Amino acid sequence: MDVSALLTSAGINVGICVVLVSLYSILRKQPSNYCVYFGRMLSGGRVKRNDPRWYERFAPSPSWLVKAWETTEDEMLAAAGLDAVVFIRMVICSIRIFSVVAVVCISFVLPVNYYGPMMEHKEAHLEPLSIFTIENLNPRSRWLWVHCLSLYIISSAACALLYFEYKTIAKKRLAYIAASSSKPSHFTVLMRAVPQSPDQSYNETVREYFTNYYARSYLSHLMVYRDGIIQRLLNDAEKMRQAIKHVSPDVSCNPSLKSCNFCAGPGPTNSFKILSDEAGGVQKLELGELTLTTTEEERPVAFVFFKTRYDALVASEVLQTSNPMLWVADLAPEPHDVYWKNLKVPYRQLWMRKIATLVGAVAFMFVFLLPVAGIQGLTQLKTLSKNFPFLRPLLKRDIMNRVITGYLPSVILVLFFYTVPPLMMYFSTLEGCISRSLRKRSACIRVVYFTIWNVFFVNILSGSVIRQLSIFSSVKDLPAQLAKAVPTQAGFFMTYCFTSGWAGLACEIIQPVGLIWNLIARVIVKNQDASYETLRFPYHIEIPRLLLFGLLGFTNSVIAPLILPFLLIYFFLAYLIYKNQILNVYITKYESGGQYWPIFHNTTIFSLILSQVIALGFFGLKLSTVASGFTIPLILLTLLFSEYCRQRFAPIFQKYPAEILIAMDRADEITGKMEELHNNLKAAYSQIPLCSQESSKAGCSPPCSDQELPASEQLKPENLEAEMIKAFQRSKSSHDLEVKSCPGGSPNRYSPGFAEIYKRT
Amino acid sequence: MDVSALLTSAGINVGICVVLVSLYSILRKQPSNYCVYFGRMLSGGRVKRNDPRWYERFAPSPSWLVKAWETTEDEMLAAAGLDAVVFIRMVICSIRIFSVVAVVCISFVLPVNYYGPMMEHKEAHLEPLSIFTIENLNPRSRWLWVHCLSLYIISSAACALLYFEYKTIAKKRLAYIAASSSKPSHFTVLMRAVPQSPDQSYNETVREYFTNYYARSYLSHLMVYRDGIIQRLLNDAEKMRQAIKHVSPDVSCNPSLKSCNFCAGPGPTNSFKILSDEAGGVQKLELGELTLTTTEEERPVAFVFFKTRYDALVASEVLQTSNPMLWVADLAPEPHDVYWKNLKVPYRQLWMRKIATLVGAVAFMFVFLLPVAGIQGLTQLKTLSKNFPFLRPLLKRDIMNRVITGYLPSVILVLFFYTVPPLMMYFSTLEGCISRSLRKRSACIRVVYFTIWNVFFVNILSGSVIRQLSIFSSVKDLPAQLAKAVPTQAGFFMTYCFTSGWAGLACEIIQPVGLIWNLIARVIVKNQDASYETLRFPYHIEIPRLLLFGLLGFTNSVIAPLILPFLLIYFFLAYLIYKNQILNVYITKYESGGQYWPIFHNTTIFSLILSQVIALGFFGLKLSTVASGFTIPLILLTLLFSEYCRQRFAPIFQKYPAEILIAMDRADEITGKMEELHNNLKAAYSQIPLCSQESSKAGCSPPCSDQELPASEQLKPENLEAEMIKAFQRSKSSHDLEVKSCPGGSPNRYSPGFAEIYKRT
Repeated sequence: MDVSALLTSAGINVGICVVLVSLYSILRKQPSNYCVYFGRMLSGGRVKRNDPRWYERFAPSPSWLVKAWETTEDEMLAAAGLDAVVFIRMVICSIRIFSVVAVVCISFVLPVNYYGPMMEHKEAHLEPLSIFTIENLNPRSRWLWVHCLSLYIISSAACALLYFEYKTIAKKRLAYIAASSSKPSHFTVLMRAVPQSPDQSYNETVREYFTNYYARSYLSHLMVYRDGIIQRLLNDAEKMRQAIKHVSPDVSCNPSLKSCNFCAGPGPTNSFKILSDEAGGVQKLELGELTLTTTEEERPVAFVFFKTRYDALVASEVLQTSNPMLWVADLAPEPHDVYWKNLKVPYRQLWMRKIATLVGAVAFMFVFLLPVAGIQGLTQLKTLSKNFPFLRPLLKRDIMNRVITGYLPSVILVLFFYTVPPLMMYFSTLEGCISRSLRKRSACIRVVYFTIWNVFFVNILSGSVIRQLSIFSSVKDLPAQLAKAVPTQAGFFMTYCFTSGWAGLACEIIQPVGLIWNLIARVIVKNQDASYETLRFPYHIEIPRLLLFGLLGFTNSVIAPLILPFLLIYFFLAYLIYKNQILNVYITKYESGGQYWPIFHNTTIFSLILSQVIALGFFGLKLSTVASGFTIPLILLTLLFSEYCRQRFAPIFQKYPAEILIAMDRADEITGKMEELHNNLKAAYSQIPLCSQESSKAGCSPPCSDQELPASEQLKPENLEAEMIKAFQRSKSSHDLEVKSCPGGSPNRYSPGFAEIYKRT
Repeated sequence: MDVSALLTSAGINVGICVVLVSLYSILRKQPSNYCVYFGRMLSGGRVKRNDPRWYERFAPSPSWLVKAWETTEDEMLAAAGLDAVVFIRMVICSIRIFSVVAVVCISFVLPVNYYGPMMEHKEAHLEPLSIFTIENLNPRSRWLWVHCLSLYIISSAACALLYFEYKTIAKKRLAYIAASSSKPSHFTVLMRAVPQSPDQSYNETVREYFTNYYARSYLSHLMVYRDGIIQRLLNDAEKMRQAIKHVSPDVSCNPSLKSCNFCAGPGPTNSFKILSDEAGGVQKLELGELTLTTTEEERPVAFVFFKTRYDALVASEVLQTSNPMLWVADLAPEPHDVYWKNLKVPYRQLWMRKIATLVGAVAFMFVFLLPVAGIQGLTQLKTLSKNFPFLRPLLKRDIMNRVITGYLPSVILVLFFYTVPPLMMYFSTLEGCISRSLRKRSACIRVVYFTIWNVFFVNILSGSVIRQLSIFSSVKDLPAQLAKAVPTQAGFFMTYCFTSGWAGLACEIIQPVGLIWNLIARVIVKNQDASYETLRFPYHIEIPRLLLFGLLGFTNSVIAPLILPFLLIYFFLAYLIYKNQILNVYITKYESGGQYWPIFHNTTIFSLILSQVIALGFFGLKLSTVASGFTIPLILLTLLFSEYCRQRFAPIFQKYPAEILIAMDRADEITGKMEELHNNLKAAYSQIPLCSQESSKAGCSPPCSDQELPASEQLKPENLEAEMIKAFQRSKSSHDLEVKSCPGGSPNRYSPGFAEIYKRT
């Protein structure tokens, strides 16, 4: 691949980006697209002013860029929560690190490479890309010192930046814990694997256990039931109807079935009040069959509530009994975050599920080798024209040649790659994660592994090794092999940066799926409801992509530094576009509290060490023993740094510090808020939809606080139309259970159980 | 190597064993050797009757074997603690597993191998050992089914036995925890990394922290001081002397220095009472310099005592503050078990020390390759006679040839191997383990890794791979390489079993070091004191050896099954000899509470899986795809079993179950024992030797309970002499601080601090 092919590829992608971004700046101003581009604002109840005769809306404008740039971190935190801030910090941290890397490598390493003696210089546009790589130096070159020194500078800068960033994020997480004083999850322990008892229900077993061992701190508990919510409501209604038929009319509470219109009424009807209570409450009614079946439907899982946060923490961390597979305690996830389906999975299955999904993920990794190998075929045109002779005339044209070698492979890879995150999400679901945030984090880690393996290693090694599927045959020679392969693949990675990075961001901002869906709904189906699901930010797709580009940046830094400016452009674009998307499109329903950061940190350290190993391999190939000798202590130092960070910061992201929880408990006891918090606990974790006000009060903070938009974002006048749409949608969603309603239907008006319905990841 | 060389080696070792064991049965009856062979009994105060004119004592007798055989597990538990029982269970479990393996492999696999078509049969004594191995089958042989089926039977039997054994040991551990109700360690948390405060001492910081956050459960605490015990006593005496000089005589407590004769007096003198109190107590005295220096000597480490066991457990498991490297809490080790030196190591150094010792251990592993490579040279006589021409006439003799190829290599390996455990112990000390039992366990794990690597892998692969130090160059081909190498090394492993196994056991029982030391002391130095250190059972030497033989047994089972009967003999001998040694020689000063079992379990599973992988390699070499195909699910099933055991049992060996501790707390509160336990806590963990009675009451159970010897062990009459020796030694040890006194000096009469002196591991 030469410079002209690279420029072709860059040109195509810049064109795509400019077109899409301009299109976005127009489309976003069309009132009919508000559902797609302003999901968060609509769900927050803030309405745009718009005027059908306001023609400025057909001209592209950079106002959204200005707004994204101007939004501060505190505003982000208030609007979208800690995870979003952490994600943006990842982008910022990448920008900082790669600014240093780019300055060092472009100003020192690139000239040394370019003026190396191994290759002859041609005309500028015909220069092969390998002339910019370390391959252009001859063996035992004295100039390898520049590379070694650059590696030291890069590593120190990256470690220092990572350290300070980890420190800042840890502080933010602690502040986040301390600030979220009204969270019911702090008081709640999810108890799984409650042992079965022949003569009492799970409910009684749980009560007996906790009144026995945690008498001082135990408050109450709530069992988890088998059925889905809707199913249960219907069943209960049916049972209630039959009960009323059979039982004498002097039962104290008189269930009125007619007023039950699925939680849109003024408050819960009697039938739901009874069932939302503990099963004990049901038994008191003694409605014959009803008691029996309710008990049968209990699962050996309970939310147990404690009097203080510290008590809950203690109960969740201690090994309860002498059988570690019974009475398994974890701090409960937020009510909105609970993944109810998986709560019903028996605990003793979980370890098997974990192994099974691991095996499945590894198997998928190897299946994925097939398309990757095909892509590699494309970069080698000769093999292609040999295998497909009918393509030969086409391939003889220069422009086609450029497009096929320079652009097509990475587009195909990107397209294939779209299947990965949903599948990994599915694996994480199967694995039995108890909360949505945990599931997403688990999927994120899987996608990171997958991306690094299938995009980086397989692409690099496929030429020489993968074809014989003997990648594992030479661990010792790996550094040298990688060192040989990285410069040859530099061109491919650059085009991958254009397609997956630049064009991917443009796709992200224009939201093609949502846009088309919206179009179909309005134009073809003539559905004025403009149905479109509410979106959560896809951390499990975006973080791995960010990390992959980090890996490419580090590994190419001293070997083929030409990629760095393109990467920096990607990171800058990512900063602006993701900020815009987080502020406007995605709704925060659940949070992991910054737990994505350790993934970023560890993977970045891994990338750094890998790049050092590859550099070591290259110094070995170039027979520079001194440079190799100096690289080994660098690797050891980086490992030491990693271990230190693991000791110093990682526990904060796994556990809650007792100190902070105790301080929160005391503050609440002094202000008298404790009583109120206790009263809200059961309602927050009820499987049955309760009245909306209560649950949103007790649940996590509403996705959009009352923060106002900065002035630049205030669009053109008159909010009548959107107001009307909103009012219409609200009334509609309160009468039927249409799932795919516009976010204006405000999903947080429902109880946590309903979050399951709004589930796009 | 042929059958005759093997028999030579076996003959030499059987001879050595018979001679040494007969010698032992005579030597042990000599009163002058009681110090060597009955350390435990002497330390327990039980004295043998003996009579200088009792001439039967010069005849060998098997009485000790009978006694070892007859001792039950409960007696072992009472006499030597849970760790000893767990060790004996390891031997029993090995016997059970390898009985099954031997029966299956000798009756099915061996005939199939022997009557295979690949080699011609010679005379019995000239048959090469390889004729008994799987190499004798031709490729695609239908008889490989026998091997595959045997592998299934072996694996299932091993897993079943391991499962039930793990279950039993887990129960025993729980019973041990529940039974040890008087242990002060249950109430105590070791708090490290207390943060420094400019305006108060560590002591005040600790008190402030715990009265603030653990007001309900905190009892008191005890700081750790910098100096060694003896050093501190001397320093304090000196300070006290000066204080008395300077301070007016009306100080309330009047330290009487003269009566202080290092803890042998009637009780602690005033000076030690003061210092054993908290430093706060010292400050109240206001003795000028004394206060200042005592505070300076405080380390940021404290033993914190709680009101109940559950409270201590909670405090030890919760993340205390937002900086995970401050206020690090662990459940305290037993007072006898504390490794005081390492408590003074700053906590922030520990992670570095861990990495450094890891690097050191790995480096040592590679240095050790040199002697191993030399040994391998010996087994190849041709290379030897080429390199050392002067040896040629010697090597031409048949018997020398046999000795050198069949016997010498493993003797040299065994001798080199004696350097490993002390070094690993040193690494574990450097690592900063806070207790002796933890240090031994950590050393044990290191030695296991080292043994498996250096004895098994390096010996197996040295012929083909190690010489080029390119062991890592082929991970994928490893199964096939191992499969090729294992049968060729079968002879070496058998002789290793004779020398390290059989002869090693004979050496263990005769205790050559102790015997020679004893002889020197009596005959040459004319020292009637018969000084010899008290011994602890060297788990870190014996468990790895046991595990190595297990590994050899599994890996050779279907490939070269001739080794199995010899291994079984080793395990039987080990059972008798270790039982005898545990009952008579070794003293139990500290316990890990059965925590060695997971090491045994995991390593056995590893051995099993490795043998399956090797078999898989062999089936591949023999081109039997069906057998290979059937082996892969077996490996997966074994991995699943391993994971299940990890889930089901491992947590019990890492944490205390809350249920049991709460039950113990309640029982003690009802019986009113709690108060007494609380009062003993400080004395138990005092760094300064207090009066012996107190500490032995509060400390762990005395090494020998009052259990009586079975009748067969009651030796000949008259206990006068030993009684006299004992009385003499006791009086002596109370007057000077001779370290190497005979165990009759009863080390547990001293406070825990003194355990450091009696430290042979």
